[in-house]
Formats: sequence, C-alpha cells, structure tokens
Amino acid sequence: MTTVSIVGGSGYGGGEALRLLLDHPNVEVKQVTSRSHLGEFVYQVHPNLRKRTQLKFSDPAQLEPVEVLLLAQPHGQAQHEIERYAGLAGRIVDLAADFRLRDAGAYERWYGERHAAPEWLGRFVYGLPELHRPELAAAHYVSGVGCNATASNLALLPLVRADLIHKDEPIIIEIKVGSSEGGAEGNPASHHPERASVIRTFSPFGHRHTAEVIQEMGLPDVSLTMTSVDLVRGVLATAHARVRAGVTAKDLWNAYRGAANENPFIRIVKEQRGIYRVPEPKILAGSNYADLGFDLDESRGHVVSMCAIDNLMKGAAGSAVQCLNLMMGWDETLGLEFAGLHPL
Amino acid sequence: MTTVSIVGGSGYGGGEALRLLLDHPNVEVKQVTSRSHLGEFVYQVHPNLRKRTQLKFSDPAQLEPVEVLLLAQPHGQAQHEIERYAGLAGRIVDLAADFRLRDAGAYERWYGERHAAPEWLGRFVYGLPELHRPELAAAHYVSGVGCNATASNLALLPLVRADLIHKDEPIIIEIKVGSSEGGAEGNPASHHPERASVIRTFSPFGHRHTAEVIQEMGLPDVSLTMTSVDLVRGVLATAHARVRAGVTAKDLWNAYRGAANENPFIRIVKEQRGIYRVPEPKILAGSNYADLGFDLDESRGHVVSMCAIDNLMKGAAGSAVQCLNLMMGWDETLGLEFAGLHPL
Amino acid sequence: MTTVSIVGGSGYGGGEALRLLLDHPNVEVKQVTSRSHLGEFVYQVHPNLRKRTQLKFSDPAQLEPVEVLLLAQPHGQAQHEIERYAGLAGRIVDLAADFRLRDAGAYERWYGERHAAPEWLGRFVYGLPELHRPELAAAHYVSGVGCNATASNLALLPLVRADLIHKDEPIIIEIKVGSSEGGAEGNPASHHPERASVIRTFSPFGHRHTAEVIQEMGLPDVSLTMTSVDLVRGVLATAHARVRAGVTAKDLWNAYRGAANENPFIRIVKEQRGIYRVPEPKILAGSNYADLGFDLDESRGHVVSMCAIDNLMKGAAGSAVQCLNLMMGWDETLGLEFAGLHPL
Amino acid sequence: MTTVSIVGGSGYGGGEALRLLLDHPNVEVKQVTSRSHLGEFVYQVHPNLRKRTQLKFSDPAQLEPVEVLLLAQPHGQAQHEIERYAGLAGRIVDLAADFRLRDAGAYERWYGERHAAPEWLGRFVYGLPELHRPELAAAHYVSGVGCNATASNLALLPLVRADLIHKDEPIIIEIKVGSSEGGAEGNPASHHPERASVIRTFSPFGHRHTAEVIQEMGLPDVSLTMTSVDLVRGVLATAHARVRAGVTAKDLWNAYRGAANENPFIRIVKEQRGIYRVPEPKILAGSNYADLGFDLDESRGHVVSMCAIDNLMKGAAGSAVQCLNLMMGWDETLGLEFAGLHPL
Repeated sequence: MTTVSIVGGSGYGGGEALRLLLDHPNVEVKQVTSRSHLGEFVYQVHPNLRKRTQLKFSDPAQLEPVEVLLLAQPHGQAQHEIERYAGLAGRIVDLAADFRLRDAGAYERWYGERHAAPEWLGRFVYGLPELHRPELAAAHYVSGVGCNATASNLALLPLVRADLIHKDEPIIIEIKVGSSEGGAEGNPASHHPERASVIRTFSPFGHRHTAEVIQEMGLPDVSLTMTSVDLVRGVLATAHARVRAGVTAKDLWNAYRGAANENPFIRIVKEQRGIYRVPEPKILAGSNYADLGFDLDESRGHVVSMCAIDNLMKGAAGSAVQCLNLMMGWDETLGLEFAGLHPL
Repeated sequence: MTTVSIVGGSGYGGGEALRLLLDHPNVEVKQVTSRSHLGEFVYQVHPNLRKRTQLKFSDPAQLEPVEVLLLAQPHGQAQHEIERYAGLAGRIVDLAADFRLRDAGAYERWYGERHAAPEWLGRFVYGLPELHRPELAAAHYVSGVGCNATASNLALLPLVRADLIHKDEPIIIEIKVGSSEGGAEGNPASHHPERASVIRTFSPFGHRHTAEVIQEMGLPDVSLTMTSVDLVRGVLATAHARVRAGVTAKDLWNAYRGAANENPFIRIVKEQRGIYRVPEPKILAGSNYADLGFDLDESRGHVVSMCAIDNLMKGAAGSAVQCLNLMMGWDETLGLEFAGLHPL
Repeated sequence: MTTVSIVGGSGYGGGEALRLLLDHPNVEVKQVTSRSHLGEFVYQVHPNLRKRTQLKFSDPAQLEPVEVLLLAQPHGQAQHEIERYAGLAGRIVDLAADFRLRDAGAYERWYGERHAAPEWLGRFVYGLPELHRPELAAAHYVSGVGCNATASNLALLPLVRADLIHKDEPIIIEIKVGSSEGGAEGNPASHHPERASVIRTFSPFGHRHTAEVIQEMGLPDVSLTMTSVDLVRGVLATAHARVRAGVTAKDLWNAYRGAANENPFIRIVKEQRGIYRVPEPKILAGSNYADLGFDLDESRGHVVSMCAIDNLMKGAAGSAVQCLNLMMGWDETLGLEFAGLHPL
Repeated sequence: MTTVSIVGGSGYGGGEALRLLLDHPNVEVKQVTSRSHLGEFVYQVHPNLRKRTQLKFSDPAQLEPVEVLLLAQPHGQAQHEIERYAGLAGRIVDLAADFRLRDAGAYERWYGERHAAPEWLGRFVYGLPELHRPELAAAHYVSGVGCNATASNLALLPLVRADLIHKDEPIIIEIKVGSSEGGAEGNPASHHPERASVIRTFSPFGHRHTAEVIQEMGLPDVSLTMTSVDLVRGVLATAHARVRAGVTAKDLWNAYRGAANENPFIRIVKEQRGIYRVPEPKILAGSNYADLGFDLDESRGHVVSMCAIDNLMKGAAGSAVQCLNLMMGWDETLGLEFAGLHPL
C-alpha cells in the first residue's frame, strides 16, 4: 500500500480526492489536513464518508513524511510551501493552479502577481493524461488542471491533433458550469435564493483557465465565456471554430474516434435517437469520463465541439488520481471505475 | 397619496414590500433605509426594480416623519426603537417577530429573552386579515406574521372555526419551505452546492412560529416540523388532526368554502383531474393567495389540511400591505392583484 | 372595452396572454378556445387564474366575431385558417411562427414545407416593437416573435443600429433556455428525471429562429446554438461578434443607452458591484423587460453582447400585448407593468 | 461467476440494477430485456453505461436459462409469468410490488384486484435485509421493497424493535420524494415545467406502500402522506409517534445505535454542528445507505424519526443486490461500496 496524505481536505476537490483514495486498492490515506476543521471527523464535513473512515482532520503544520502528497489547497498557497512538501514526499500531485503554467511570465499576466517559486514550474508536468501520458509516467510532480481548461482542451483535442481547424482564427468557447466550481466557501452570490435558477455570465472573457488552453493547445486567439447554471457538478464546454477547407464530417469522426480509442475516459456521444444524443454533464457526476460530441455546418465551415465533464472528477480529483496511477505505474483506471448515475 | 417609508429595505421582506408599494396606487414611498447598502440604488440590491425607481437606500438614523412606517428589520431590532418610530409615524406595520405575541411571558419562553418593550405588545394587532379583519380596520399598529405560522393558521382556520377537530389531541404540522425563508444573509448551509436538492429537516419541533399558532388558534398541543426543499419561494403546511365523531367530507367542504367566500385571498384547490389538484406553492410566487385543500380518511377520522403560500407575500409583505389597505380603509386587495405565473 | 378572443389558450403562450389580458384595463376577454380541454375551466389548466375568471375553454369551431383575435396555436395551424380568422376580427396578433418571415422562399427553406397562405406574409408586421414600432401602430395583422430570435435580435440591436460590428463576419450566438420554451406538451426528454439538471445542447446550429435574426438584422452569417438548462422560464442570448476598427467601450455605451432610452422595456445591466451585474433571466419571470449587457475585449476586438428575457413574456405573450397596445393606440406598457420578482 | 439476467431493464430500477451487476465481482450479466427498446444498446437508454457494456436489449420472450433472474418490470406483470421465470432460473429477485405482501386479501384490498398467483406469495421472502436477513440467506425467491415503505420501515425499526412507542396510537409518516420514484415513463404532471420546483402532495393517505409498513412493522394505525419535491433521487420519511411513558433520549440512542451496529448500511446522522446534522437524501444518490435520525420532545412524548435513502438504491436495486448477496452467501456489501457524492 502506498501512503498518501491530502493537504487541504475540507474543500470540494480535497474531499473528492479523499473519497477516491479511501476506496483505492493500492492506497492508504495517512493524513488529511484542514486548518478550519481541525479535529473534526472528516465525515462531519463530507457526510458521504460517514461509516467509511474514522479519520479526523489534522494540522497542516504537523504533516508527516509520506510517499505521495496530494495538495488540494486554495490557489496561491502551495507555491509558498512547495519546498517543505517536497521534503516530506517524493511525489506530489497538486490540484490547485499554482503549477499549471510553464512560463512565469504567463503566470504573472493571468494571475496578476509574481510566482513565488518559479523554479518549480518546470518540474511539474501538466496533469491531464490525455495530453501528457508518457511524461506523467515519469513524473514526480504533477500539476492540477483547471476544470474549464480541461473541458476546453478535450473539446479541442481531436480537432487540433488532426489539424482540422484554422488555429489562427478566433476560437470561441462557451462554458456552462455548476456551482461546485466556485469551491466550498460561500459568498453573497452563492446564497441559494440568489444562485438558484441562474443563467449568470460571470466572465465574458479573461478567465484564468484560458491560459491553460493557450499553453496546452497552442491556440493564440481563444476566449472562454463562463456562465453559471443551476447544477452543482458539471461543466459543458462548447467550442466554436472554423475547419480547414475540405474537412468533412468523416474527418471529424475519425479524429474523435481516435481520441476515444486512445483514452479510456474519453467517450463519443453523438446519437440520432434517444434522450441522450450529446454530451451532458448531469450523468457524469462522480465519474471520470469526458464525453465528446461535435457537429459540422459544412456550408459555413463551422464546427461545434462539445465536452462534458464532472468538474470535481475529470476536472480535478479524478484526473489527479488518474495521474497518480500513471505516475505509480498502476492501471490508469484504478479507483476510477464508478460509471455515474442515470437518472440523476 | 399616503406617504410610506420602509425601514430595513435590503432584506427579502423589505424588498418585496417595496415592490408592492412602488406600484400601489394610493402610496408614495418616501424613504427606504439600509445600513449595509447605504447610498446604493435600491435596484442594485433588488434588480427587478431597475428602471422602476431611482430611490437610494438612506440612513435609518435619518428617517423623516411619514404617515406610515413599514418595518422590515431582522427580528429583535424594532422593539428597541418602537418609541422613536411611533414618534415619526402615526401608523406602523411591522414585518418582524417583535410584536406578534400578545403575552410577554410567551415571548420570553419562545424567544429566549425578555421583550424590550412589553407595554407595546398589547397595542399591536396580529397582522393576519383572515383572523383579525375588524381589529385591523381600527388599528394603528400592526404586527407581522410568521410565514410558517400563516400557512399553519390558514390550514387550520376552517377546521377550528367550524369546530370540526379535537383541539386537545396532538396536531402535527409538517411544513416544507423554500430557501428565501432564511433571509437575505447567507450562511454555510445556504451555499448553493450544499443547499441545492435538499430535503433537510432543520427543526423537528420547537420552531418559534409555533407560538403564533398556539396563540391564534388556541390549540395547546401543536407541533411544527420544518423541512427545507429545493425552491426559493413557497411554503406548504400540511396539518394532521383528528375530526370529531360524525364529521364528514361535506362538513369540511362547507367549512372551507366559507373561508374562501369570506376572504378574497383564500382559494380552495381540490380537483379530481388535471395536474394541479392540490395547493402548490410554485404557482403562488408573487401572489398573495393562500391555497387550501384537505382530505379526510373517514375510517380513521384523520383529516389532512394543506395550505400553500408564497412566504414573502401572504407570509410577509403581502399580508402587510393587505393590513395597510384595511387600516387605511382602502380596498383590501389594492396593489395585490398579481395572479402568479404558470408555468414557473 | 375592446373585445379579444384567444385561439389556442391551453398552451403556455396562450395562457400567459390570457393572464395579461384578464388584467388589462382596456380589454374584455370574450372566448378562449382549446380543443383538448374543451369545457374545462381555464383555471384547471392555468391554476394561477383560479378565482380570477370563470371562463371555460370553448370550441375553436365556434369562434364568434370579435375586435381582436390573438392566435396562440402550435406552429403551422394559423396559416390554414387565416381567412376565417380575418373574417371574424379586424385585427389579429399571432404568437406562432406562421407569419414571421416576409419571404415565402425563406419560409420553405427553414420550415421544410411550402407556406399555405404566402399572400398573407406581406400583410403581417413582425411583432417586435423595438424594431417596428411605427409600422405596428398602423398594422392590422401582427406576427409573433421567436423567443430565441427576440433575445438574439435585441442583443444585436444596439450593435447593428450603430453600425459597430463587422456584419459579414461570422456571428455566434449561444442561447441558454428554460424548459417552458418547449411548450406545454411533454415528451420523453422533458420527463423531469431526464430534464432536471441538464446542460443539453439540442441544436448546435440550424434552429428555425435563425431565420428571424437574418431577416430582421440583415446579418448573413449568424448561427444560434441552443442549450437547455435547469430553469422553467428564461432565455439568455450571448452574441459574439467583431467590432469595427476603433470602436471603443464608450461607443458601445452610447449605443446601448440609446436603445434603453428609446424603448420602455429595454434596460442595461452592467454593474461593477452587487450580485446582479449582468442580464439574468431569473429575475425577469413574468416581466416584459429585455435586459441587455455587453463587454468588449479591445485587444481582440471581440464584443460579447447579452440579452435576457422571459421567453413567455418579451419572447411571446408580452411582446404580443405590447403590439396590441401599439396597434390600438394605447400606452405601450399597459397591462405589462409587473416588475418581476426578487428573489426567485 | 454467477449468471444473472434482468427482465425489464429499460426502467429506472432495472437500469440501476444493471449498473450494479455489471460492476459486481461475482456476477456475469447475460441478458437484459426490454420490449420497447428491443435491439438498442443498453447505453442508449442508460447513458452512464456507455463504454461499460456492449449489451443490447433482448426480447423478453427469448429469455434463456440462467442462475438468477432479476425482475424489474412494472407492477402487475411478474405474477402472470412467475411459473415461466421459475422454470428458467433457480433464484428470483423481484423489484416490483407483485410478491411483497404475504396475504392475498391484503393484496386485493390495497391493489384493487385479485392476485394472479396467490400460491407464490408465501414462497417469497420480503426483500429488506434489515428485517429478514436470516430468511434471505435461505431464500430462493425474494420480493422487492417499496421505496417509501423502506424509508418508513427503517425509520420505525429501532422504535419498534426496542418497543419504545405506543403501537396502537396513530403514527403519521410524512414522506418527501424525488421524481424518479414515478418511473421512467413520463406523464403530464412529470413534464419539466409542471414538475420543477413543486411541493406537491400526490397522496395524503392510502398509498399502496402503506400495506408493507403495516405488514412488516405490525402497526395497525399508520398513514403515509406523500409529497413530491424538486429532486430526482431520494426519499425522506419522517415518522411521528408517541413514546411509552418514561422513554428517554438515551433509550432512543441505544435503539438506533443497535440498528446501526447490526446493519452495514444503516448509519445514524445526529450532529450538533456542521451542515449535515440530519439524514438527507441528496448525499445518498447511488449509495445503499439508509441514514437515520431522531428527536424527542420529552414534554409531549413526541418522537420524530427520520430515514433518508436513495429510492433507486436502498429503496429498489440496492436492496435487491444486497438480497442477492445474502441469498448467494456472499459478503452482504459486495458491489454496493459506492459512498455517494458530496457535494451534489
């Protein structure tokens, strides 16, 4: 059994990672830290874990050496303590945004402040297996992924890999998200009477996750428009791009099928009948799948590519555990077998 | 035009009262106070009022004399300032719980503290027109009503008035409520990811509104069980009681029809076909109706009586405006004509 | 009092029109027809109208002469009976799609069948007052508006009127809609367990309402992407376009302010603080407002323009009543004063 | 591997059973039948199973011999074919209501028709392990459980086992349910615009599941009041009873702790702090837990006992698989390990 501790386990990402690791056949969870819930049973914060573990939240200052540290703190903390963490564990998987960007300048542009440990940026591998499977197998430090970036990157992946779209033309990605994306801390806009039933565009462009799409896809002119809808878990990214001359629906099918064949958690959803014809986040809650779909208006060369994920799974803890599996040489899908629920 | 000012206008009850009074044909709204939103346009807090008024929130310390003061502060404040308010306005309608109970001892038992102005308790009329129409017509001071108490009292009204139930046997009232009942201030449990999709019993018994049911209905053994569900506006109270021997469905019909005939905002909903066969709060949003229904298990003498209301309207601001109309000698329904929406 | 009858009153558009006309000071509703609910009280289908009217649904075959007919049938029916209707009433307002397009060829392309009464297409004025106020004042026949088309047209209106965008470049409009848009008839995908919590893209492009945007805005390369979310009433259209060189945020402000000043039901929502900073459909339920917002990425010349409406009001019955007011020479806002609710 | 076939696999209960059995380590799913979806891939109906199985729905008339048949048909079908099924499989687990009641007279009273195979009623064991664990271990035929009956029976179990309540006094059970309880077939009331945001009491008393509570708990005067709320999966039963003289909170704690200790899927939720202090169905989606809570008003002898479950799991497919495990001599929790999600 490989020992893993979770730093920042009272948030949603940390809680989801904890759920996955408690049931993971190769892992023993040693510590889960939380400053604000110190001493409480983890099931008092994550009620689904009642009768599953008697672990209590421990003090982050009293972290013990362990084989793997999984960091699930709010953004901006890990970079200040990365040396300490690296002294405690040989392998680190971060869920936050601290080590996602390779370039310290890009970090400063998008996050509005200097990075506190720029020398560590190059040591981390971007934690999306569909993009970096070989590097992850050799990695000791793995970054988190932005949930919106993940939905965007996977929506674009088949198009970019097969070179089917004009990369220099504007690419517009419209993203609809549930409320868990905002994290476990409430704010006036997340108060239920204000947040229920919304279609609320909180970021027309300029969202920080854009930087991960630019970096990973190599697309210079991409924008993410973020809209909250009434759902707790789930992201749907809808990317609008222009295909190169002559590209047909068949080319698209080939590209998407290739992605699904190479990646255990990618599925194509493109049906002519039934209720579920396109990717939909609602059936993905708790699952690590990324469902892809597309449609091509051949007359206008306009391709619409969709990716649905659970933001806390494929968009956070699920990808992190998948990276852990790869890093440790285990089966990539270990501990990530839950199929999702229908109906929900 | 009668001048009215609203004290505490940034909350949900105050906002709803403001919406009603801005469109009220006999009223001119003079001031709306809010300490926390001082100087902001009221439409920045209540976005439905954009382009309807250029009023800004003013300082509660700078209240000016006015014909009627409508108090919409959090519970426990009005009783400390009632002398000042009475000096500013000849008529006062309170939405809070400060002046609902007639008995200072009962107040202390249910609210856990001595009342700050017990001599004022007797000057207020309990603000539910269906129970106190004549007194309200002569009143200068009108109390608010608890939304859960209102749904309970109206569910019981036909049964108690016609003396159809055993008043000394336990009466169990199960109440399902939306999230706006908790007020405009968020808390950890109202954070959308935690509050969405709940069926959450926050008070099995002992809810403070019970005191208003005991007082107004004269029922000694009544309990209110409060459960939050996924809805913003709305309350459904379901009262379980035992009918006296020989009471039939026809007796119940007579009692409920009487209540509906005497009260413009009471309707009976008891259909054999269609989708809407029973009282349902969802179609009452924004309306001042109280929809009543009932069913009798004759073999067991068990009557189930239901009342659905919008907690912010009939359960708060709507009843307050109805009381204002009565107090001023206007048509009881003035400014309260909105029918509600279907579908919603 | 002007007499009005509603043909097809059991659907959502017809029910909403009925609600508005029952409270309209200048209108007397004479008949409401429904084949499927013949003989039922209208409040059995539209439960918000209980105690508001004792009207029953009558037989569409027994329509009597009246001053104005409001048609609220499913698409494709009115064009087959328009001669009969015109014989019964001097003025007609249609809610359906039958008479929205001016060109019979366009109708055939978008609706996949020949129009049954092409000679009537030119007699109808497109029923959006913000686009055709003068013509509506002189009209006898007014068409309905597509709800998605309305949100799109109003989102684009300030940009197009002030000539701020490249009209020949692709314009992408992402539209999120509630479930009432699908009408009152259920289908497997609208069954609550399947429909709740969705983010479901039911039309990536090719939606019929696109034809109304092309016709009314004169934009050749526009696409509408339709996504259902968990809400009953409401549409948010988000239009992405490229501004002409040199266009600044100030130019946009001027254009949007102009639109808001000229039109009583257009509001600009663009705040720097508070919860409601952008247009949101949730606060518009029951109201006839169209809330507009925008944002400009000057570096990329990318403008995002948003319009939120209630699809059953501004997107259907509300605009129809507004047109009726204009056609009759009444105040444009008569019967449309409801402000909407906060919270909801 | 034990071979299992599912009869009626396109409904919600059958789909959930299929999900569980596909991942069950000791089971091989051989056939899944559906008349209406014959020939379709099961993942076209249950989209969560995409990439998990290539099974197609087969013809129920062409069922092949198998070790265990799991019946998931609509109520009233299995009793007509039970002889055929028993000829095909040595063991049968039914999810429907056909074989839940021991007494043919009770069946006729509650279901309004004679049972078609009354001689089979005595051969089935009622499929709730918490009540019949030893009999289930020896059973060949196991009935389904009503979801509302299960929540009620488990809410009452500790009280009845420890003889803490007056069994002859009226017991009122208020049950709040999600929309999946109504099954996969839509109806006018389940159309999303009509079903969203409801608090809709569809059965004040007389619900058929009452018969299972009377039978299993031996309580003569019990009523179930059923109310639909806005949720897809989940049931909360709240039972109101009178405790015997002298019963204290400590007695209750002992009784509930006993139930939790003896049953792997029973948990007590009774916290003084945090958001999740009482049983809540929302965190149970996909899990087989039954969460119990209680509160005692000692002055009035009024106990409120709550049980939350996922109606498709503990209330249907989960209990069925648990029974299968017991019947086969396997670990009771096999294939039922999913913890549920937080947040959701």
